[in-house]
Amino acid sequence: MPNPTAAMLVIGDEILSGRTRDANMHYLAGQLTAHGIDLREVRVVPDQPAAIIGAVQALAAGFEWVFTSGGIGPTHDDITADCIARAFDVPINVRDDARQALERHYQTSGTVMNEARLRMARIPDGATLIDNPVSGAPGFSLGNVHVMAGVPAIFQAMVQSVLAQMDGGMPLTSQTLTIDRGEGDIAAALGRLAQEHPDLSFGSYPFQTTDGHFGTNVVIRGADPGQVAAAKTLLAGLVSE
Amino acid sequence: MPNPTAAMLVIGDEILSGRTRDANMHYLAGQLTAHGIDLREVRVVPDQPAAIIGAVQALAAGFEWVFTSGGIGPTHDDITADCIARAFDVPINVRDDARQALERHYQTSGTVMNEARLRMARIPDGATLIDNPVSGAPGFSLGNVHVMAGVPAIFQAMVQSVLAQMDGGMPLTSQTLTIDRGEGDIAAALGRLAQEHPDLSFGSYPFQTTDGHFGTNVVIRGADPGQVAAAKTLLAGLVSE
Repeated sequence: MPNPTAAMLVIGDEILSGRTRDANMHYLAGQLTAHGIDLREVRVVPDQPAAIIGAVQALAAGFEWVFTSGGIGPTHDDITADCIARAFDVPINVRDDARQALERHYQTSGTVMNEARLRMARIPDGATLIDNPVSGAPGFSLGNVHVMAGVPAIFQAMVQSVLAQMDGGMPLTSQTLTIDRGEGDIAAALGRLAQEHPDLSFGSYPFQTTDGHFGTNVVIRGADPGQVAAAKTLLAGLVSE
Repeated sequence: MPNPTAAMLVIGDEILSGRTRDANMHYLAGQLTAHGIDLREVRVVPDQPAAIIGAVQALAAGFEWVFTSGGIGPTHDDITADCIARAFDVPINVRDDARQALERHYQTSGTVMNEARLRMARIPDGATLIDNPVSGAPGFSLGNVHVMAGVPAIFQAMVQSVLAQMDGGMPLTSQTLTIDRGEGDIAAALGRLAQEHPDLSFGSYPFQTTDGHFGTNVVIRGADPGQVAAAKTLLAGLVSE
C-alpha cells in the first residue's frame, strides 16, 4: 500500500515579504517523513481570504492530509479559522470547549481574557480541537485539514499531538554517499543505477567547498534497508573507478 | 500603479523530505521586496513532471513573474528544463551559446565536458540565457518564467542578474515596533489603527522570550515613510496607555 500523501499550507505575509524565514516547513517535512507520510506539495500564501480559501480547497482535494501553519492568533490579520470555515462552507462561532481551554490557560498564566483573545475560541462547526500546551489557544482539525499556529514552538507541539493520532505508512530508509566529484562526472553511472533499481529513489545534490571544489551527495531512499545499503555499495564502487 | 506581482516555484524532493532546509525562498523574498516586486505565492513541488508542469502553468498564468529554483543540473533527477519546455509547448535542444558558456567555464576550471554535462546546455526554444558565474551551466528566462539553479550561491547570482534587468515598483518602507505585551492585549487598538489607515499594512507577530513571557512585534508597511513613522508613534502611544 502506498504511503498516505500530505500537503502543507503556510499562511503569512511575513514569509512572503522576507521579514521572517519560515521554520515550520522543514520541521513538518522531517516529521512526516519519519512517520511514513509523503509530503507532496507546500504552498505559501499571504493573509488574504481568496488566496487562503483557494489553496485550502485545492490541497484538501488533491492530497489525503493538509497541514496549515499561521494566522490563528487574536489580531486583525489572523483570518485562517474564518477562511477554513468558508472553504468548507460551515458556520464558525465561539465554542465552549475552546473558550474553556483558553480560560484554563489564562488562569494559570495570569492573563486577562478579553474580546480579542476570545476570537481565538472561534472554531468552525464540526472541527476537533488540537491542544496548545504553550499559549492555550487551540488549533483544530476539520475534514482532512489540520490547522495549527505559526509560532514554531506551538506549531511543533501541535504537529506532535496530530501525528500521535494518525496512521502513518512505511518510513523510508535513506543513506547518503558523499562523493568527491562533481555531478557531471557521476551522472551517467548514477542514471544507469537509478534505472536498474526502480524501487529506490536516487537524489543527487551538488555542493561546493569553500575552496571552490565541487562534490556530490547522493541520497538513496527505499523501504528495504538492505536494498538501500547494497545500492550504496554498488554506487561507491562505480564512482571510484 | 500597483507593484508587479511574482510567484516562486521551488523544485526538489530534498526539500519535501526534510533532508534540506530551503534557503532560496527567504533570499528571493527579501530581494523582491527591496526591488518593489510583490511575492504573492510560493509552491514547493517534487521532481515529478506532472507536478512541475502543472505548477509552472498555474503560476505563469496567475502572476506577472515566476522564479523557479532547482533541478537544472546534469543528473537523471534534473528535469526542470524539459518540464518548462513542455509547459510552454516548445522544443528543447542543446543550444550553441549555452554549450559555449559551459565550455568556457570548463576550460578555466579544468573540468571535462561529457554527455551528462552537455545536458545542461539543453535550452527551450525562445529562451534567453541567465549567466552562471559559479559553475557555468546557465539558467534561462522563457516568457515570464525565470529558471534558476537550486544551489544557493548560484541561485543568488542568477537572481541578481535577472533583477538588474527588471523594472521594479515602489519598494515599501517598513518599521517595527516591539511591544512588551501579548498580542491579545494590543489586538483591539491595533485593529482600529489598521482600519483607520487603509494605505498601510499592520502585521502582528507574537514572540515568546526564554522565560515564557509573550511580546509582539508589529510591522507597519507602506509606500510613504512619513506615514509609516507617524503610525508607529501613534501605536506606541496607544499600547503604553
